[in-house]
Order: sequence, then C-alpha cells, then structure tokens
Amino acid sequence: MTEHLPGRHMAAEIDQQPAIFADLVSRRSSIAAVADAIRDRRPRFVLLAARGSSDHAAIYAKYLTEVLLQLPAGLVSPSTTTLYGAQPDLRDVLVVSVSQSGGSPDLLEVTESARARGALTVAVTNTADSPLNGAAELSVDVGAGVEQAVAATKTYSATLLALYLLIDAIRGGNGAAAEGLGDLARSTLDSSADAVAEAVQRYRFVDRVLTTGRGYSLPSALEAALKLAETSYLAARAYSGADLLHGPVAAVDGETAVLAVTSAGKGGEAMHDVLDVVHGRGADVLAVGSAADKVAAALRIPVAETAEEVAPILEILPVQRLAHGLALARGGDPDSPRGLNKVTRTR
Amino acid sequence: MTEHLPGRHMAAEIDQQPAIFADLVSRRSSIAAVADAIRDRRPRFVLLAARGSSDHAAIYAKYLTEVLLQLPAGLVSPSTTTLYGAQPDLRDVLVVSVSQSGGSPDLLEVTESARARGALTVAVTNTADSPLNGAAELSVDVGAGVEQAVAATKTYSATLLALYLLIDAIRGGNGAAAEGLGDLARSTLDSSADAVAEAVQRYRFVDRVLTTGRGYSLPSALEAALKLAETSYLAARAYSGADLLHGPVAAVDGETAVLAVTSAGKGGEAMHDVLDVVHGRGADVLAVGSAADKVAAALRIPVAETAEEVAPILEILPVQRLAHGLALARGGDPDSPRGLNKVTRTR
Repeated sequence: MTEHLPGRHMAAEIDQQPAIFADLVSRRSSIAAVADAIRDRRPRFVLLAARGSSDHAAIYAKYLTEVLLQLPAGLVSPSTTTLYGAQPDLRDVLVVSVSQSGGSPDLLEVTESARARGALTVAVTNTADSPLNGAAELSVDVGAGVEQAVAATKTYSATLLALYLLIDAIRGGNGAAAEGLGDLARSTLDSSADAVAEAVQRYRFVDRVLTTGRGYSLPSALEAALKLAETSYLAARAYSGADLLHGPVAAVDGETAVLAVTSAGKGGEAMHDVLDVVHGRGADVLAVGSAADKVAAALRIPVAETAEEVAPILEILPVQRLAHGLALARGGDPDSPRGLNKVTRTR
Repeated sequence: MTEHLPGRHMAAEIDQQPAIFADLVSRRSSIAAVADAIRDRRPRFVLLAARGSSDHAAIYAKYLTEVLLQLPAGLVSPSTTTLYGAQPDLRDVLVVSVSQSGGSPDLLEVTESARARGALTVAVTNTADSPLNGAAELSVDVGAGVEQAVAATKTYSATLLALYLLIDAIRGGNGAAAEGLGDLARSTLDSSADAVAEAVQRYRFVDRVLTTGRGYSLPSALEAALKLAETSYLAARAYSGADLLHGPVAAVDGETAVLAVTSAGKGGEAMHDVLDVVHGRGADVLAVGSAADKVAAALRIPVAETAEEVAPILEILPVQRLAHGLALARGGDPDSPRGLNKVTRTR
C-alpha cells in the first residue's frame, strides 16, 4: 500500500494539460461537426449554464460568443428555473451547459427545461455518458480523462479549449489560434516554474488576496481566486479590473496581494490604469500573463504569448501551480480540500 | 462653518429611503408609460448593462425578467464593446442600462452601440439629464435625489424599486407587491436598529467575511459585500448559496463571519441546506431577512415580510446601517472612503 503524497493528483493533472490540449486540437473535426449542426439552426441568442469552475469557463464562452459570433449572450441563473419555475420562450436560443461531471442536478433541470421550451441545447462535459449529455440535443466531449483531485485543473483548461474550438467553428473558423497550444502549454509550465516557486515563498503568509483581469482574462482572475480559496483556504476575491475601481479598491492597501492577469492584447492593456491605482495604494502586485513584463509589479510569472482569445487557456496553468504550491506550503492537501466533494449536488 | 460628522451623509441617505420608496410608488404611472412603449416592441431577449452597485441592481432585474416576463436575459460585459468592438445583431433585444449617475463612459458607449444595432434601449438613472438618458431611446427616473455619500445606498434601493415597477408593468401588473413599501421600509429600519447595533459590536474586529444568498436575494448578498468592502475595507466576498458549496466553502471556518440573506420564499428556503453546511464548519452566521428566524444563526436582523420579488428592496436597509456602523466603529468615514470617487470613469 502506497502512502498518499499530498497534492500528488493535482500536480499530475496540471502536468497532463499539454498532452490533453494537443489531443483536443487534433480532434477538432468532431467538434466542428457539432458546430455545423448549431450553425444550421441559426441561433440568435446564446445562454450559458454552469456552476463553480465551469461558470468561469462559461464566462469565457460568453466573451467568445459576443466577440467572435457577434451574438448577444447571457449566463443562466439556474435558480430561476429550479426555484421559481420560470418558463421563458427559448426559440432561437442556443443553451450551452458546461459541467465537468455532467452530474449537477440543477444544470440537468435547466437543460431539460430549456430543450422543452424550444432551445437548441449543447452539453460540454468531461463525462461523455453523463445525464447532462443525455438531456442535451448535442454534446462536446472535453476529453481530459478522469480527474482525481477535487480542485479542477485539467478539466477547466480543456473545457476552455473545447469551447474555443466549438465557437470558432460555429463562425466557420478552423481553430487556428489553438494550433500548437500543447507545446505552448508545455513551455509555459517549464518557463514559469521558477517564478511560481518564488511566488509560493512570497505569499506563504499572505492574508488578503485579490485577483483581477479584464476582457478575456476576467475568467482567469475568477478561476484564480476560486483555486486559491479551495486549495489554500485564502479569502481571495476576484474583480474585473473595471469593477475594482467602482468601490472594492477602497479595501486595497499595503497588506493586499493583487494577482493581476495581464496578457498581450486589449484586456491586458486595459489593466495598466487599474494597476497604476492599485500600485499607488501600496499593494503587492503579482502579474501573470504574456504581458506581465509591461506592468508595474513586485513579481511576474511569464506565460507564452498567443492570440488573445486563447490566452486564458495558458494563463491559468502557472496559477494552478501556485495554488498547489501554496496549499502544500501552508500544510494542506490540495487533492482533498476540507469539506469538498467532486460533484456538488445543488438545486 | 460646521464640522463634518463622519458618516453623516450616508446616515441621512439611508434614512431617506422610506420617503423615496413611497414617492416612487406614487409615480408608478410614469414608469408604466415607458413599460407600454417597451411592450409594444415585443422584445424577445433582455440585456442589462451596469457597473458597481448598479450591477447588483441589474442582476435583480435579470431575475425579474426571467421569472416575471418569462424572457431570457443576460448581463452585458461592457468590454466586449469597449475593448473588442463587438457588434452583435440586437434586433428584438431590449437593453436596459442601469447607472446612478448616468455618466459612466463605458455604459454610454454600450448603449449608443446597442441602439445603433437595433436594440430598444432604456436608461434607468438617478440623473434625468445624464448623457446616458440622452443616448437611450427611453428613460426611467429613479428619483432618489442627489446622493452625497460616496457609498450608494438610496440610489441602489430606489433603482431596485424602479426596475421592479418597470418590469412588473411590462407584464401588465400594477406594482401591487410594492404597495406600502415606504411604510415597511420605515418599520424595517426601526425594528432592526437594536440587532444592527449588536452586530456592529460583534463584528467590530472581524477579518473574514463572506456574504451569501440565493435567487432574488443574491443581489442583496453581492451588494452587502460591496458595501462592507467600500466603507469598512473588509475583504468581504459574496457567493450564491449554490456556488458557495462548489469550492469556496473550503475557506469557511470558525474565524469566518457569514452574512446570509434569508427572506421568506423560495430563495430563503434554499439557503437552509447551505447554512447547515456553513454552520457545521463553525462559521458565525448573521442572518438578515424576513425569514432570519428560520435558520441556525448566531445573530438575526429582522426585515419586514413582503412578496419575495420585492424583498431585496428592504433586505439591504439594515445591511447599509451595518456597513455604516462598522465603518464608524473601525475609525473610518463612510462618506468618503479612501480612494473612491462618485463617478468612476472606466472604459
């Protein structure tokens, strides 16, 4: 009987991501077939349904939908269906339900109900035979393999990639921006290792953590805060760079660590003003991203540069390593955070 | 020359709310006229655009839209317009832009752009001659009067009420659930005063605060966290009761204060399971709402009972008083939090 090494599963799953990305990109024709079926139905409005980490993937998909597909989009509040029994008219609506396990009862109910009310429903899951796949008309298999660690890592990033490939294919693209993402993921993990180790040391005793990003990188900031909260029990809060200046910045001071996602592109550029304010308040800025060297920061974690719309797929990799490292340094086991199960059964 | 008493403006504005509600309810026919114009255009989708506190009002409006109007709805990510230049097809879409000042450049750009792309645009502001009112085809005046304190109180609650009256009128209602809300606001402020004072004592030295709610009360939890962050510099985080169980609950322990919004109705009932988990982890629960006496809590702040869809208009009142009291107790001035301006100019 082998003893469990704390964080072993999470470390292994983080490391699997380059291969998973390469595999998913090579399977993109199967996703393109789903995209064709969606395009034929000419949806006019897109709704995304998700919970937890998948909710951050859904926010990423919302940006892709608005920018690449030029369609208005929104996030489903599952409770309007599950608690209040709303039955909106969903003709011409595409409902994309995103769930690693495909087992959340609330997403199942939302998807069944949406389909019954005229929506075209697509399940994006990592469990091809899940109840959610059965409920939806179409399915995309994320294909990240079984996830052992409770904190989602590879299923999160692979879900982003699957959503990118799906949405790009709906507009007739061939996933060009994702080409080579497996190799870039590998080089990002390798080249960021030293900076991540330094960040683990620096934030070993941190108490106030705030994460921020804008545009495509907002989901990365949200996911970073969740990962830090669930593995290291840090009270990390995430804000869009714009919202941060509307109030919450009052709580930023010299005792605050700010993890800022700053990739090359419009979202990263729009963070300059935000970080000037944050820096001026004495906060300790950790910049993560391919444009981390462009902003004032105490520490920078580099990420390989890509087209901005796929940057979130790489940005999160060193952040996962940081969450893992901090959890171990603080004496926790990121493979089984206290109080969490793999499938959360909310309604 | 009179010396400024810290928090004087915020206290006065909190106290003005009962009269503002009564006035707004009495002016509901002017809002119904806007609603008639919207109904004539038969929108099929609704998008809400907002920042900061108004974003929480927009989330409230999203629930109302989905449940009362039976229409799919989403929140606009302004950056898809302002950073990425997205130009989605917005025919048959109603875009509601919510802004206390009507002066945010990003909301202005979103509204102008939406109108140019076929959306029916409505501005809901507290500044009837604002640029946003000029940009939108229709306008609703929140009518809360000039706000002096930087932390929004009366403009937030009055915006909720204006949105309720608007959306209820679109479905042909006469705002029945809002009848008498002025008196109920008065009795809520009076009857909650002792409990609020006790909560100020109890949480004087709190470090970890989390707020939570479900359904219609989710916006109240979000607004509570923002109010505590911007007036008392507390690192308060908000989660939907459902999302809380997906990860963030790992960070909840005996040192965590959990402000839980629990009003009579489906949203409050759905919080029972969540609070059982939170309570089981040793957290200190402060229950706020008309059903606060139904859950396990260390302290309860009562709120007058109403129809669930208007409960958020009252729930926030004692929370504003709590934020004000905590800010003073911790030596701050809630009228001018460090680093905040009344109009935040993000793009």
